[in-house]
Amino acid sequence: MRVEIWSDIACPWCYVGKARFEKALRAFPHQEAVEVIHRSFELDPNRPKGDTAPVIPMLAQKYGMTETQAREAEQRLGENAAAEGLAYRTEGRDHGNTFDMHRLLHFAREQGGQDAQDRLIGALYRANFAEERSVFDDDERLTALAAEAGLDADAAREILADPAAYADAVRADEREAAELGANGVPFFVLDRKFGVSGAQPAEVFTQALEQAWAARSPLTVLTQDTPDGGQACGPDGCAVPQS
Amino acid sequence: MRVEIWSDIACPWCYVGKARFEKALRAFPHQEAVEVIHRSFELDPNRPKGDTAPVIPMLAQKYGMTETQAREAEQRLGENAAAEGLAYRTEGRDHGNTFDMHRLLHFAREQGGQDAQDRLIGALYRANFAEERSVFDDDERLTALAAEAGLDADAAREILADPAAYADAVRADEREAAELGANGVPFFVLDRKFGVSGAQPAEVFTQALEQAWAARSPLTVLTQDTPDGGQACGPDGCAVPQS
Repeated sequence: MRVEIWSDIACPWCYVGKARFEKALRAFPHQEAVEVIHRSFELDPNRPKGDTAPVIPMLAQKYGMTETQAREAEQRLGENAAAEGLAYRTEGRDHGNTFDMHRLLHFAREQGGQDAQDRLIGALYRANFAEERSVFDDDERLTALAAEAGLDADAAREILADPAAYADAVRADEREAAELGANGVPFFVLDRKFGVSGAQPAEVFTQALEQAWAARSPLTVLTQDTPDGGQACGPDGCAVPQS
Repeated sequence: MRVEIWSDIACPWCYVGKARFEKALRAFPHQEAVEVIHRSFELDPNRPKGDTAPVIPMLAQKYGMTETQAREAEQRLGENAAAEGLAYRTEGRDHGNTFDMHRLLHFAREQGGQDAQDRLIGALYRANFAEERSVFDDDERLTALAAEAGLDADAAREILADPAAYADAVRADEREAAELGANGVPFFVLDRKFGVSGAQPAEVFTQALEQAWAARSPLTVLTQDTPDGGQACGPDGCAVPQS
């Protein structure tokens, strides 16, 4: 069974939602059979690289509230995070372009599979939401986080320095999100059959895992019995065509 | 709609089956909406790199036939290929380890998407089945084929020189093939719902494309209406938690 999670590093509900999903997954009896893939979604794809700004004034402007109200909203987000055991820094965070982080997450998957990707996204969330030093526009910081996630630092640095590396993979994820009808994140897709939108409570993820598990189906194999149909090669060799 | 095709470059029925599938795809009214992904499958995964041998004696030994009979079988395979408009060299081909070619196909997908991967697998098949110079154990030959498919030659050379590059991706494909019940190739999987095993006639692929198209279903979105459930971030910002 495969769970794909579209998210953005700059999305606090993605950070919270991941923890709620993982709570459900840890209690799921078939968790060993669940593959998790993190997919890219930029909340702000048109924000140029380097355009980084503090979160609080950005929130105040976006929602037409005072900075005090924006701080209070962040406090409540911090309470939601704390309820999931997550550290959350309610003041002084930045907001910026996350494309390079998504490129790095694809590199992590390619190099180290599910575990490396999961470690890296965890490190990126923690760096962005819980640590003082900004995670934006700082290739050495991202390189260090990649190394912390078990990836080769030199290789990560090279990926970051080459804007084309894994760029298509990020965009392909984003196209797929649109095709699947996701217009916000986090967005969870189970076996391409069930979707969960938003940081739902763990019980909703439990229900989704159970429904998707029950709906697992073997492939319907279509075939046609003709003398020249369906010839194949396998470990024991190829079908030999008869004269 | 997504069609995944597990195949091996050393598999003549994969070469023929690809052409039959493409014939069906070209006539399919929704072909623009079909994504094709080539996935890795090694017929002979335990064959060491460098262990390359002529096909005819290998076939004769494997099937307990004379070399004349093996040549006749290759002639008939050539007729099947010719019927699909494919060149096929019935004498003098080699058989060997294809792991590096699969690694290169993953690199092609990552760098140039579906089109680059499709061009590369086409070039590899043609080189192996229709051209004189062996495609095995010759990194310069593979690099030239990658360049012919529009990929960066230096990058391809680097991938080939690093046995770890894309190795996990190849093995992941092979694990998935086993999980889906494929024990031979070509193996076609449509939206993870329908499977077609072997080089079936084009009509079977047409039927499969039509069935998979009809079975397309939007995701069932699971949700729960609770005040704190389903918070998300989108292009217009994040849900603001209320006090």
